[in-house]
Amino acid sequence: MLRLYDYLESGNGYKVRLLLAQLGIPFERVELDITRGESRTDDFLARNPNGRIPTLELEDGSHLAESNAIQWYLAEGTPLLPDDRLLRAQVLQWMFFEQYSHEPYVAVVRFWAHQGLLDEKGGEVEERRRRGHEALAVMERHLGDHDFLVGGAYSIADIALYAYTHVADEGGFDLRPYPALRAWLDRVATQPGHIPITRG
Amino acid sequence: MLRLYDYLESGNGYKVRLLLAQLGIPFERVELDITRGESRTDDFLARNPNGRIPTLELEDGSHLAESNAIQWYLAEGTPLLPDDRLLRAQVLQWMFFEQYSHEPYVAVVRFWAHQGLLDEKGGEVEERRRRGHEALAVMERHLGDHDFLVGGAYSIADIALYAYTHVADEGGFDLRPYPALRAWLDRVATQPGHIPITRG
Repeated sequence: MLRLYDYLESGNGYKVRLLLAQLGIPFERVELDITRGESRTDDFLARNPNGRIPTLELEDGSHLAESNAIQWYLAEGTPLLPDDRLLRAQVLQWMFFEQYSHEPYVAVVRFWAHQGLLDEKGGEVEERRRRGHEALAVMERHLGDHDFLVGGAYSIADIALYAYTHVADEGGFDLRPYPALRAWLDRVATQPGHIPITRG
Repeated sequence: MLRLYDYLESGNGYKVRLLLAQLGIPFERVELDITRGESRTDDFLARNPNGRIPTLELEDGSHLAESNAIQWYLAEGTPLLPDDRLLRAQVLQWMFFEQYSHEPYVAVVRFWAHQGLLDEKGGEVEERRRRGHEALAVMERHLGDHDFLVGGAYSIADIALYAYTHVADEGGFDLRPYPALRAWLDRVATQPGHIPITRG
């Protein structure tokens, strides 16, 4: 059985949990408290030298890291990853956008809020909120005339961006200025087999 | 003919230029001075709403952004992207590692150095150098017993990590503590069709 090293609050972990649920693939979940260094032990660094969750352990004992690479591996050959060469590259475009232009802002401010670090981080919070809103505006512009991010159908690109966008309010992001984005959040949340981020 | 919106100093742009050269694919290069806002004009934002280079214009007029998504699109069906499902996911794992754990540190400090911003950025420089060295140490550990990042052969994962690692010294990163990484840089630089980052 697949084994997922995970942390329940993590949107990156949630991407993989949600996808596995929607694909109907059973897995064992191992919760690591990343705030207590449980992803930096010698045992875990042997599984992922970069010391991050999610990390997927395959049935042959090998490991795969990076939430969006894991998603790609699992979704191959399913309706959640299109076959067309350009559409596949567009899925990757949005997943790289998520990790470079969205997650470091929208997810990190939420993490700081959960950890009670907003005061300590000072002006960095507002700078990251500004960059986060830039990313949300890029999504709003695209979703204004697209039901889903790529090819008119729900895919792992939607899962990748949904994971932290739907809980952006926990980092103080007001989503009211983004009506197309909010309608897309609703469409994603009503896909068959959807589970909430709180479900382990 | 393919058209690449690019900026010569950019390692992200270099990934695509190097790959196109090694695949023998002709293209037109359009240089945008990102330091003067040339990637934030209305004309360019219509091509890539995220306002970043590299952006590839395909022959049908559509556009693809994100250096590693462009690489994936171009390398499909070539020896630079393996066929095996797990190896392909490992290529993506390293490319997401590059964009999340390496580029924001190794590339950004180099950019600040080029722009004369190191004094202005203050303590942020040392913090980003510390995180950059963490990424270089992850690479060193892996390259200690692998000639290339994935599957024992040169791939777009190597191009993705080579782009900013080989010029890390321009951001003040001393690569002497990483002998396996330096040997890998030499192996990448001697691949057929290699071009330097300064070649437009």
